[in-house]
Amino acid sequence: MDLGQSTKGQQLLAKLNDFMAEHIYPNEKAYAEQLHALDNRFAIVPLMDELKAKAKAAGLWNLFCPHEFPQYSEHGGLSFTDYAPLAEVMGRVIWSPEVFNCNAPDTGNMEVFMKYATDAQREKWLTPLLNGDIRSSYAMTEPQVASSDATNIELSIVKDGNEWVLNGRKWFITGAMNERTKIFIVMGKSDPDNSSRHKQQSQVLVPKDTPGVTIIRPLTTLGYDDAPIGHAEIVFGNVRVPLENILLGEGRGFEIAQGRLAPGRMHHCMRLVGAAQRALELACKRAVSRTTFGKPLSKHQSVREEISKSFSEIEMARLLVLKTCKQIDDQGPMQTTDMIAATKTTVPLLVQNVIDRCMQLHGAGGLTEDYFMAEAFNYARWCRQADGPDQVHQMALGKQIIDRYAV
Amino acid sequence: MDLGQSTKGQQLLAKLNDFMAEHIYPNEKAYAEQLHALDNRFAIVPLMDELKAKAKAAGLWNLFCPHEFPQYSEHGGLSFTDYAPLAEVMGRVIWSPEVFNCNAPDTGNMEVFMKYATDAQREKWLTPLLNGDIRSSYAMTEPQVASSDATNIELSIVKDGNEWVLNGRKWFITGAMNERTKIFIVMGKSDPDNSSRHKQQSQVLVPKDTPGVTIIRPLTTLGYDDAPIGHAEIVFGNVRVPLENILLGEGRGFEIAQGRLAPGRMHHCMRLVGAAQRALELACKRAVSRTTFGKPLSKHQSVREEISKSFSEIEMARLLVLKTCKQIDDQGPMQTTDMIAATKTTVPLLVQNVIDRCMQLHGAGGLTEDYFMAEAFNYARWCRQADGPDQVHQMALGKQIIDRYAV
Amino acid sequence: MDLGQSTKGQQLLAKLNDFMAEHIYPNEKAYAEQLHALDNRFAIVPLMDELKAKAKAAGLWNLFCPHEFPQYSEHGGLSFTDYAPLAEVMGRVIWSPEVFNCNAPDTGNMEVFMKYATDAQREKWLTPLLNGDIRSSYAMTEPQVASSDATNIELSIVKDGNEWVLNGRKWFITGAMNERTKIFIVMGKSDPDNSSRHKQQSQVLVPKDTPGVTIIRPLTTLGYDDAPIGHAEIVFGNVRVPLENILLGEGRGFEIAQGRLAPGRMHHCMRLVGAAQRALELACKRAVSRTTFGKPLSKHQSVREEISKSFSEIEMARLLVLKTCKQIDDQGPMQTTDMIAATKTTVPLLVQNVIDRCMQLHGAGGLTEDYFMAEAFNYARWCRQADGPDQVHQMALGKQIIDRYAV
Amino acid sequence: MDLGQSTKGQQLLAKLNDFMAEHIYPNEKAYAEQLHALDNRFAIVPLMDELKAKAKAAGLWNLFCPHEFPQYSEHGGLSFTDYAPLAEVMGRVIWSPEVFNCNAPDTGNMEVFMKYATDAQREKWLTPLLNGDIRSSYAMTEPQVASSDATNIELSIVKDGNEWVLNGRKWFITGAMNERTKIFIVMGKSDPDNSSRHKQQSQVLVPKDTPGVTIIRPLTTLGYDDAPIGHAEIVFGNVRVPLENILLGEGRGFEIAQGRLAPGRMHHCMRLVGAAQRALELACKRAVSRTTFGKPLSKHQSVREEISKSFSEIEMARLLVLKTCKQIDDQGPMQTTDMIAATKTTVPLLVQNVIDRCMQLHGAGGLTEDYFMAEAFNYARWCRQADGPDQVHQMALGKQIIDRYAV
Repeated sequence: MDLGQSTKGQQLLAKLNDFMAEHIYPNEKAYAEQLHALDNRFAIVPLMDELKAKAKAAGLWNLFCPHEFPQYSEHGGLSFTDYAPLAEVMGRVIWSPEVFNCNAPDTGNMEVFMKYATDAQREKWLTPLLNGDIRSSYAMTEPQVASSDATNIELSIVKDGNEWVLNGRKWFITGAMNERTKIFIVMGKSDPDNSSRHKQQSQVLVPKDTPGVTIIRPLTTLGYDDAPIGHAEIVFGNVRVPLENILLGEGRGFEIAQGRLAPGRMHHCMRLVGAAQRALELACKRAVSRTTFGKPLSKHQSVREEISKSFSEIEMARLLVLKTCKQIDDQGPMQTTDMIAATKTTVPLLVQNVIDRCMQLHGAGGLTEDYFMAEAFNYARWCRQADGPDQVHQMALGKQIIDRYAV
Repeated sequence: MDLGQSTKGQQLLAKLNDFMAEHIYPNEKAYAEQLHALDNRFAIVPLMDELKAKAKAAGLWNLFCPHEFPQYSEHGGLSFTDYAPLAEVMGRVIWSPEVFNCNAPDTGNMEVFMKYATDAQREKWLTPLLNGDIRSSYAMTEPQVASSDATNIELSIVKDGNEWVLNGRKWFITGAMNERTKIFIVMGKSDPDNSSRHKQQSQVLVPKDTPGVTIIRPLTTLGYDDAPIGHAEIVFGNVRVPLENILLGEGRGFEIAQGRLAPGRMHHCMRLVGAAQRALELACKRAVSRTTFGKPLSKHQSVREEISKSFSEIEMARLLVLKTCKQIDDQGPMQTTDMIAATKTTVPLLVQNVIDRCMQLHGAGGLTEDYFMAEAFNYARWCRQADGPDQVHQMALGKQIIDRYAV
Repeated sequence: MDLGQSTKGQQLLAKLNDFMAEHIYPNEKAYAEQLHALDNRFAIVPLMDELKAKAKAAGLWNLFCPHEFPQYSEHGGLSFTDYAPLAEVMGRVIWSPEVFNCNAPDTGNMEVFMKYATDAQREKWLTPLLNGDIRSSYAMTEPQVASSDATNIELSIVKDGNEWVLNGRKWFITGAMNERTKIFIVMGKSDPDNSSRHKQQSQVLVPKDTPGVTIIRPLTTLGYDDAPIGHAEIVFGNVRVPLENILLGEGRGFEIAQGRLAPGRMHHCMRLVGAAQRALELACKRAVSRTTFGKPLSKHQSVREEISKSFSEIEMARLLVLKTCKQIDDQGPMQTTDMIAATKTTVPLLVQNVIDRCMQLHGAGGLTEDYFMAEAFNYARWCRQADGPDQVHQMALGKQIIDRYAV
Repeated sequence: MDLGQSTKGQQLLAKLNDFMAEHIYPNEKAYAEQLHALDNRFAIVPLMDELKAKAKAAGLWNLFCPHEFPQYSEHGGLSFTDYAPLAEVMGRVIWSPEVFNCNAPDTGNMEVFMKYATDAQREKWLTPLLNGDIRSSYAMTEPQVASSDATNIELSIVKDGNEWVLNGRKWFITGAMNERTKIFIVMGKSDPDNSSRHKQQSQVLVPKDTPGVTIIRPLTTLGYDDAPIGHAEIVFGNVRVPLENILLGEGRGFEIAQGRLAPGRMHHCMRLVGAAQRALELACKRAVSRTTFGKPLSKHQSVREEISKSFSEIEMARLLVLKTCKQIDDQGPMQTTDMIAATKTTVPLLVQNVIDRCMQLHGAGGLTEDYFMAEAFNYARWCRQADGPDQVHQMALGKQIIDRYAV
């Protein structure tokens, strides 16, 4: 069980760390100011485009591209084990994954195109996505049903002549409001009477500017709108797209969803480890620079215990991510559902708690925009709901473990 | 140990519950929309003024007024034990305390005026505050020092002729940006060489429009700006006020701070109990209305365990608040430092956890502005820092308990 | 909501505290030595009989006797609110409740006799129990079924001529092995085909020396046999008792069980609060007497935080117990099932955690018999299973709260 | 970072699992009965000797022997990474490590002899220890001082002619009472005035039957005496041993202690992972075999969540152990103090919590001797104190991490 990176991975990691040091950390304040100055919160932050160009030039582009698809990246594809430490580093700055074209939901969407799209679909959408010229959304969650059970999805997809007609409501559609977003992958029910509950769904491609697509509002989580990417509520009212916009085939929507979500969950966890690690480092710096009641925080036993605990927890979270990555690399995601569920239901909560502790060590300022921690706390918190509430995954994992050992 | 309300308290509670049902809950959405529509986030929400007029007419005004000062309220003053259930009910809607002129920091500031001000100061500032015509701020916390140890405060107050000259920087000055806020009570160091560390501070009244007062920015906590009240960072640059603007007397700033903060901490805890109670009630409604995997949430054993745990914890938090109130009523806050610290360090964290659970039961929507929970979560979270991080109070309480039992 | 004691309660409390100081605390070591020296771990500890005589003489006898039955105690009966602080004090020494004839399961059994027995049954068994001359057991839990659902009970009770014939197996029968125990109250199924699941059970009196009663073994929990009271596994093999040995009437066993268990759960919680309080006091003494790394434990911030947290939690647990007591006094146990369940599922776990912390502060010694903490930890731990695992009560409480607020 | 076993390790693991299945699990009840039947709780359990012979014959002997000392074992030495999964399997049955001559404290003591003893000392004591013919104790902890700071040790070692004279009191001396134990390694202060606090200590060999050695009593933790190994309190009163009984040299006791304890802490953690794993497996079996309220436990969502959580936590604990092992293998224990401390302060508490959950799923029986869980719970609990309370290690680790990141 070798959890280390390949030489290629190590080289990319070194380069990425250099890039972060040179271009990202020094620009955190400037990025925040540019974003704040935008009239439209979901417009393009000029700095982002500059940094993307630099990352591309540095060979730090599309790092997420999996090794099964070597043709789509300069680096020729990376395993999960190779990618995890890279994503961890990107997780140290909330907005930095986009610099490397590695942000959700585009990475997941690009993988969908790689795996399930026709050549024509790929040419039209995957190519500009890989270039970072456009952005995309994945429209699955619906407000009125428990969408973690994908068979509950209600948006209707009806064939009418040579078009699909979509009607329904979605929310938490990440990226939909961004100015550069051009295409939605929409999951809906195309065959509600099919006797197999997993054959009732299809996924179709809907250009954002199709008539009938109405973005209702941006949603916030814990007060954050996550601009300029954000999460939208969208109504699809008699939205019509040509038949060739279907992905993979009619009735295969559930299959696509299964294939798409596992890597996405892992990417969140990788990044969250980085967020926690950075919060820990900030707390250490704080501990030596702040004096209370006559001595630096670093000399309080309680502070040392909290730092110690946070360090240990982060180590465990990182190892859990890596072991899961290794198993996916070796056996594929379908043989790793146990470890993916364990990771998805453990890491976000653990990270939330680590960051909560580190914020507390910073006094009132710890909760503000002066540090990245509060926003990272929000990120960890919503990941406990994203891609299905933890409880749903615990239900499945618990069942699986009971079956394994009860014999 | 009678923790119940007097007849007067019970009557006010019944009236308050009616008022909430008739005027507050039905207006939550309208209030949010009006706030959102403001150009200046810290301007007046029209609905607030309408509701204030109604509350005043209903005899639900200045409910916080303590029984030592019967002259300042129509109801003639309430004990802590009487007030706690009223504040709990107000805590069910984040912005509702202001409707009853019972919001922080004005309540604490008004008490400062009642206890420590001259007649002239009272006439000028207390009267319009009691009427709800103006608002006020309490400027104590500084970004560069651990302000929970009030002796660390660095803003300088220097006597120059017949004026005080203030220089320094404050942050987390609640309410300072609100359009109606007119007066700041500013804590600073007037005698840094005094051999008694508790005689070095003074508090002076600084009208908001005094030259040299610069509001730098609103601060957010977990993404919330808490508009239209908010928390400001402020620079005081050669700010000059007349000598008579001192409160109580030179060198008595620490004494005022001690007297002011205890009730404030209790008021936060009272309201937080109400926030948790409402989150629990929302979770119960959710549990019966949402179906996952073939049955309503309410039939999942895990949901019942979480509801059960939340109910029990809220009961304990409420009782802790009430016992502390009773002891303050009977023995005064100075004889209740143990219980005040126990309450302040227990209730916000407990409520944060209860709300976290209730949000989780709501799926992704639970984190959004569609429910009051996310904002209440933020309220609980920052109360763990407000009026001193919990750890500072635990230090004092731990020492006190060890001294008590170690003999 | 007056949670204080009556004058009678206060006087008994003062007397009890004096008695503990004079007779119990100084004898803890001697008691342990006498118990250790017994050949039969379930024989009589001589010191116990001496102390019982003194307690009786001091008017500290049968303090548990409820106010509905004034005739059975010298003090004329106490409310739950009056009794709680007394039981708390007894909880400070694991074996001390027996000194005052206030130990489980005899108190619960005596109440059963008071409420449900015939005069003849009372004369034969209740009188010597009230005198402390004999002891009793309550045989309900069975190893092979989830006995928390009392309708699962399988021991068969069959009428044969003028006798009941019992066959079955019970375990966790507290007190059964004690030399002085003479009588078992046995719950079983007398009418398994009754269409009402709550009418199938009966309870009959079985003298311990009845042929067919076989004590299989003492059970331990976390290594403790709880001698000289202990918990037994017992087989009933064709055990025959006369028809008049039935309690209340055929088919009324479930009803008796319901009436018996609520007070028992509360008594455990009252005592556990005392156990936690004493552990806290020991931890405070330890904190000033032990020096590590150059300073006493009491000066470590982490120690103060843990003491502070423990103090606050104990306060909350005590208040929860008291509020529940008050509600039982005012409305009866059937109207207090919510608060009884909240108390039963909260206090033992909370106390377990408090004691765990206090043990940790004592270093390795904290886990040994040199302190009362380890045994009290065990007491708290098994109370999470006793009278039904917490989860069963949370199921019921969760349902009740959801129903209350979901409307 | 390859955390997997070598081929040799894998072969031993397979063989060990077979041995456990054939000889250990089927004998758990018999072992308990034989132990219970002993007059002297610290005598030899006949079954143990039979099993030791079988293990030796199977080549499963002295598996702990490190690769630096290939000469002492048939297998030629194992790395930490190779040994960890073996120790985990042994941790599934509390008493099984002794079957393979792999139990504390003998393993640590044998390593001391390997590293620090003279040839004569090795011949006399190491040879029979490696054969399993005798047993040994390590006498370091003292009741009156915080022994986690080894410089606090007070037992005096004074040179008198050609003898060392020892005076002092020790406790928690594991194994001392066992009938087969022949030799104690005793840490004491031989040069209290040395200006270097780490040069004041020496370690000397004291045969158990030396005059002046008095075993005061066995100690219990949470009610367990851990027979037939156990933990003793011992008085050394003018105990005299020849000068050649010193280990390594005068003033080098601290150095030996440092070298000895790191592997010991890791061995405990390896075994605890196995204990937790087995508790999880028991809980899974229980979940399918026990029905409450009409359905098996396995169908309750709360049960699945707890199984899921336990699985995830065990995975993390195991990975943390393995990563630390790997780092020790690669860099030595002195370069791995951070990870050793992280493991030592994380795994026992985590395992305690996992087992607590699994016991709760078993109802009242879960706390009894009918399952191995209660005793394993005790093992996890005292490991939070053994080799220094967790807090001491967190102090050191916290400081180390702060220093690392604060720059």
